[in-house]
Amino acid sequence: MRSGVITLMTDFGLSDTYAGVMKGVICRINPAARVIDLTHDIAPFNILQAAVQVADSYEYFPTGTVHVIVIDPGVGSGRKILCMKMNGHFFLAPDNGVLSAVYDPDGIEAMVQVTNRHLFLPEVSSTFHGRDIFAPVAARLAAGLVLEELGEATNKMVHIEIPVAEALPDGTMKGTILWVDHFGNLITNIRTADLQDRFVGRDPVLSVSGRTIRGISSNFASASQGELLAVRGSFGRIEISVREGSAAHMLSAGPGTTIILH
Amino acid sequence: MRSGVITLMTDFGLSDTYAGVMKGVICRINPAARVIDLTHDIAPFNILQAAVQVADSYEYFPTGTVHVIVIDPGVGSGRKILCMKMNGHFFLAPDNGVLSAVYDPDGIEAMVQVTNRHLFLPEVSSTFHGRDIFAPVAARLAAGLVLEELGEATNKMVHIEIPVAEALPDGTMKGTILWVDHFGNLITNIRTADLQDRFVGRDPVLSVSGRTIRGISSNFASASQGELLAVRGSFGRIEISVREGSAAHMLSAGPGTTIILH
Amino acid sequence: MRSGVITLMTDFGLSDTYAGVMKGVICRINPAARVIDLTHDIAPFNILQAAVQVADSYEYFPTGTVHVIVIDPGVGSGRKILCMKMNGHFFLAPDNGVLSAVYDPDGIEAMVQVTNRHLFLPEVSSTFHGRDIFAPVAARLAAGLVLEELGEATNKMVHIEIPVAEALPDGTMKGTILWVDHFGNLITNIRTADLQDRFVGRDPVLSVSGRTIRGISSNFASASQGELLAVRGSFGRIEISVREGSAAHMLSAGPGTTIILH
Repeated sequence: MRSGVITLMTDFGLSDTYAGVMKGVICRINPAARVIDLTHDIAPFNILQAAVQVADSYEYFPTGTVHVIVIDPGVGSGRKILCMKMNGHFFLAPDNGVLSAVYDPDGIEAMVQVTNRHLFLPEVSSTFHGRDIFAPVAARLAAGLVLEELGEATNKMVHIEIPVAEALPDGTMKGTILWVDHFGNLITNIRTADLQDRFVGRDPVLSVSGRTIRGISSNFASASQGELLAVRGSFGRIEISVREGSAAHMLSAGPGTTIILH
Repeated sequence: MRSGVITLMTDFGLSDTYAGVMKGVICRINPAARVIDLTHDIAPFNILQAAVQVADSYEYFPTGTVHVIVIDPGVGSGRKILCMKMNGHFFLAPDNGVLSAVYDPDGIEAMVQVTNRHLFLPEVSSTFHGRDIFAPVAARLAAGLVLEELGEATNKMVHIEIPVAEALPDGTMKGTILWVDHFGNLITNIRTADLQDRFVGRDPVLSVSGRTIRGISSNFASASQGELLAVRGSFGRIEISVREGSAAHMLSAGPGTTIILH
Repeated sequence: MRSGVITLMTDFGLSDTYAGVMKGVICRINPAARVIDLTHDIAPFNILQAAVQVADSYEYFPTGTVHVIVIDPGVGSGRKILCMKMNGHFFLAPDNGVLSAVYDPDGIEAMVQVTNRHLFLPEVSSTFHGRDIFAPVAARLAAGLVLEELGEATNKMVHIEIPVAEALPDGTMKGTILWVDHFGNLITNIRTADLQDRFVGRDPVLSVSGRTIRGISSNFASASQGELLAVRGSFGRIEISVREGSAAHMLSAGPGTTIILH
């Protein structure tokens, strides 16, 4: 089953015509496809950020959607291209670890290496596979092409390490900041589900960049303006925020900064 | 009557997947809906800017369009959500004043408080009602759902003060800069219609940031390159511009700066 | 033949509602039109950048697409508006040279000056023809309106100089940087086709900003991280890049910087 929807996640930005041209190629092949930009502003070459964001986002789209992820520093080299069918969704991406976070061994239905050049643009450049390979293949997938047409089945995939929050022996929990959002919220790798298990009936205290935050709020409005708080974020992650301000600026914190919950 | 079109105005930016995920939710519920981004770059939490821009923009869309405005610093708190039908358009927004400028007592056809949880996503977070409430409700509205299904009728709405240009006793007019656009044009709250009444047959002189501008031009090309001018803007507002330059930079002016017309 | 697709290229940015309002006008007139953003982030008033980018991009869209280019510093002045049919595509733009690079005398099928006010919005501002003229005319063109309805045929068009790489008598080649992309890649006006003719069997050496680059790589991955390289870009142009970095930053180079190939 296909939804006819294609999502795009790239690090191309919107100031060039790269994303627009991909959409041109898609609509030339499959005029009925509906393209939705997930984002084109992944930090350049930041495979980890893209990996986590696609995992957090894909389930909000219809089953049978084709998710195209082009964070592709190895474009034109020997890196492979994968198409994975999982939990009813299709993921098309370079084999560089960008599918590591979304990968669910229990949900996998099929995985192939994309090699069928008949599905690509007639001329394939060495620097823009988004246009020459990913867009035309996605257009055809969204129109119903079966995975077997793309290339041989494979069960090999490059995995990158997705930092996971650690429960330490002393009862504390150690996490890290994964990325900073548009508002300056610090998105962590501590899941609210982790908290429920470990801090039952207790209010955790959070330490970050020499500051201490008591308790996890359920929304931003529970702090006064300019006040620092920790929030149960909307994708199941603890976020560090400043009410109507930027936590990233206030704490000079960013990806990789350590967080301790105790 | 519904046009099937949904516009989105938020302060989410485009670097995260927030806007994309809202579109995923919409197309899962109403695959025929057409989503148009009005902008996602309202300055974070700037209710006034959003209020004025939605008022200036909505009439360019088809009657029966659903306009979703998510500038929502109070998300997850007790703030209400409103859906207003006015002049044939639908407006869905938090009840924080963001509908103050578009509100037209003569055009109101209905207003309800949005409370029917059956129309929301099954799990409603406390921090992302754009995805969990606004998107699914907008999808259903665009598909023809009647307002009565959303919740009880209400006639209460939070109003914020929209600064209005003042005619002073000495014959001058005092206005203010509302926002700065992408080009650095200073968009004011002085309406060209105000001018027609007060400065009939006379060329007004405009003072801003210690500079004087004589006359109101009808287009940018009437100045020489780098020259400061005042223009009858395209949404009926006086704008202060620099030909092929940025008035905001040249004058170090921005929202709140006073303008005198005499 | 019309594809029903309209592309938009402007310098409006995405922080205002300008692009969104254009889409509102289009869908009010032609609800079946599909609008694709080519980019709204052309540097303000940079006609050259837009001219080259539309020439590089349009062929990736379906035949019968309407390409709207609104880089329009002369809006509201006496500048004309052109609609050109060429190689099966339609181009709608101010007559300021922005069609200079795409213009192909062998591919021209028709060109008219757009003057028929019945096709415009009822009120035409002097500062936003994107909304008042380009959008409604594009909507009607995409729906099948014939060019003759727009205005009189013309064969006059403003041409700007598009810098072309020069083959010098000493066997070297002199080019220039046209623009910098989102990654900081320096996009030049040296075509890979030029190289094939002049540097057969020899590896060219490239000089830029006091640095020397040996050979032209076929992809970014052939350099080590942070290393400078020259690449056969995806639109047939030589590009200067830094593997997973910004060549613009490393070389402090930008539009107009000279490049010598020898």
